[in-house]
Amino acid sequence: MSAGSAGDPLPPTIEWRGDHVRLIDQRRLPESLEFLSCRTVDSLCTAITSLAVRGAPALGVAGAMGVALAAVTGEPLASAAARLVATRPTAVNLAWGVSQALASDDPVACAVRLAAEDVERNRRLGAFGAVLLPEGGRVLTHCNAGALACAGYGTAVGVIRAAWESGRTLSVWVDETRPVLQGARLTAWELGRLGIPATLVADVMAGSLMAGGEVDCVVVGADRIAANGDVANKVGTYSLAVLAAHHGVPFYVAAPMSTVDLACPSGDAIVIERRPGAEVMAEPPAGVEVENRAFDVTPAALVTAIITDLGVVRAPYGEALARLTRPASSGSG
Amino acid sequence: MSAGSAGDPLPPTIEWRGDHVRLIDQRRLPESLEFLSCRTVDSLCTAITSLAVRGAPALGVAGAMGVALAAVTGEPLASAAARLVATRPTAVNLAWGVSQALASDDPVACAVRLAAEDVERNRRLGAFGAVLLPEGGRVLTHCNAGALACAGYGTAVGVIRAAWESGRTLSVWVDETRPVLQGARLTAWELGRLGIPATLVADVMAGSLMAGGEVDCVVVGADRIAANGDVANKVGTYSLAVLAAHHGVPFYVAAPMSTVDLACPSGDAIVIERRPGAEVMAEPPAGVEVENRAFDVTPAALVTAIITDLGVVRAPYGEALARLTRPASSGSG
Repeated sequence: MSAGSAGDPLPPTIEWRGDHVRLIDQRRLPESLEFLSCRTVDSLCTAITSLAVRGAPALGVAGAMGVALAAVTGEPLASAAARLVATRPTAVNLAWGVSQALASDDPVACAVRLAAEDVERNRRLGAFGAVLLPEGGRVLTHCNAGALACAGYGTAVGVIRAAWESGRTLSVWVDETRPVLQGARLTAWELGRLGIPATLVADVMAGSLMAGGEVDCVVVGADRIAANGDVANKVGTYSLAVLAAHHGVPFYVAAPMSTVDLACPSGDAIVIERRPGAEVMAEPPAGVEVENRAFDVTPAALVTAIITDLGVVRAPYGEALARLTRPASSGSG
Repeated sequence: MSAGSAGDPLPPTIEWRGDHVRLIDQRRLPESLEFLSCRTVDSLCTAITSLAVRGAPALGVAGAMGVALAAVTGEPLASAAARLVATRPTAVNLAWGVSQALASDDPVACAVRLAAEDVERNRRLGAFGAVLLPEGGRVLTHCNAGALACAGYGTAVGVIRAAWESGRTLSVWVDETRPVLQGARLTAWELGRLGIPATLVADVMAGSLMAGGEVDCVVVGADRIAANGDVANKVGTYSLAVLAAHHGVPFYVAAPMSTVDLACPSGDAIVIERRPGAEVMAEPPAGVEVENRAFDVTPAALVTAIITDLGVVRAPYGEALARLTRPASSGSG
C-alpha cells in the first residue's frame, strides 16, 4: 500500500501531477485540508519558505520536483537548483533531492521515483524502529516527523504508526512545538486521523511528564545528521534529549539515510536557520527584540539510537553510519 | 519610592481604592493597559481564575483584599475566604493573604498594609539578589515574576531591576511561557517599559542558548517553596533547572518568605493545578486530548540559591529556610 492509496487515512503530502506539483497546504491544517498547485519553480520556492511544505524528507522530494518543474517549463536548471537550495539552509535532504534530479536524464521521472522511494523507505524505517517501542509505551514526540514531513508515512511518526499497525498498544504525548506549532497542528492531526491515542501538551510540560515517570521513550525526526551522529532537528529537540538523559528515558532519532550528511563532520558545522521573529510574536512589546532559531543540535552522546531505513544504529555513530553507507560487499563489521 | 509613585514606569498591579479593588487587567497586556474594578468577592474570584490578576505575591494581596471586600460589603468573611482560597490551589500566598486579613481587626487596613509591605519586601529581595548577577550578565527568566506578579516591583524581575538600577549592564532572555504567554505578554512588557534590554524567545530555545554559552544565569519566581527547598513554579521551570544543571549555569529562585510553606515537607505534597486544555489549543484536531498542568516542581538539588526578602539561602535548604523564619534572637547561625 502506498501513501494516498485507498485505505490510507492520509493523502500524499506532495506529488507530481502531469505537469505540476500538488501539495497539502500545511499552513491550513488542522482547520482544513487544502491542496496547493505549484506550476513554477518560484511558486514552489514560496511554498517552501512559507512552510506550506516542510520536513526534511518532503523537502528532498520538493527539491527534485522543483528541478522537474524547471525542466517542464523550460527554465535553466542550474538557476532553478540554486534558488531551491537557498530556500531552507538546514535540511540536507533539500540539496540532496535537487542534486539527484539534476544528475538524472529525466528529472520528472526521478522526482516521481524519489517520492515513491521515500514512502517505501519510511515503511522500512518504521518496521526497524517499531520493535523499540514497548507494549503500552507512552511515546513523546516533537514537531512533525510524520507523513506530512515526507512524501508519506512518516519517520518518527512512522515508527509509532508501524508499532500501532503491528498491534502494539501505545499512546503519544505530542509537543505543540512553538513557534509554528507543527506538533499541535500537524502531528496531532495525523495521529487523530490514524486513530492513535494522542495527548497534546505545551512544550514546557515535557520535563514534568518525565519526572512523573510518564514517558517511556522519545522519538523525533532529524533535519540533518552529521557524520559523528550529532543531530540537527526542530528547536527544542536538544532540551528533550538533555531531559531524557537526566531521567534515563531512551531518546531515539528516526531519519532516512538521505538525512545523514557524511560531508558534515559534526553538529558544529551545521548552519542553523534563523526565521522571522514574527513567528514568535507578531507585535512584541515596545523595545523588545525577538530571536527565532528554527533548529538546534543534539550531540550524539545524548542519542540512544538512530533508526534509519537501513537499520538501527547505536554509538559509536561515526563508525556505524559509515558502515551503513558502504556497499554491502565491503561490510565486515 | 513606592510602586505607582511618580517616576515609576509601572502602575500598581493591585490596589485598594476606598471601597473596591482596582487591578491591571493582565489579560489585555501588552496590547493595552486597562484597569478592572472589583466591588464584590465574586468579581475578584473571577478576576483571579481568569488570570486578570496572577502571580504568587499578587495573589496574596488579592486574597487579603478579597476579605476586605467582604468586610465592606457585609458578606460573611468565612464564606468569602473559602471561595477566595479555592480559586487557585498552588500558590500558598493566596491562603496566606486571606488568613492575614481574617485574623486582623481591620481587613481593609491589613490588605493595604500587605500591598505596601509586598513592594518593600521585593525591593529588599531585589537588593539581596542583585549582587548575584554578573556585570554584562545575560539572564534568562521564565513566566512573569515581575511587578505584575506582585503589588509592585517584582521578585525575579525585581532582582534584575535592582541590578539594572544599581548601574549593572545586563540583558534578559525572556521565555514566552506557553500556554498563557506571561513571559511574552507581561515580562517583556515590563522590561520594555523599564528600558532593560530584553529578547523574547520561544521556551524551546533555552537549551540551545545554554549550549551556546549565551546564558549566565537563570532567575525565576516561585508559587510555593516547600520546607526542604523544593520549588513549585510555572510549568517549564523544572526543564530549565535540569538544563541549567547540565550546563553549569546558576539557577536562582527569587521569592518572598511568604512563599515558603514550612508546613509542606517537600514538592511531593504540592498540589499542581490543572487548567483548561483550551489554553493550549482551542480546537485540537479530532480525537486528540490536551493535558495542561500549570506548574511543575523543581527539586531543591537543582537550585543554586533561593533569594528571599530576608537574604540569600543555599543548600541545605531545610535548615537555612527554618533559620530565616525563626525570631532573630534565637538565631545562632
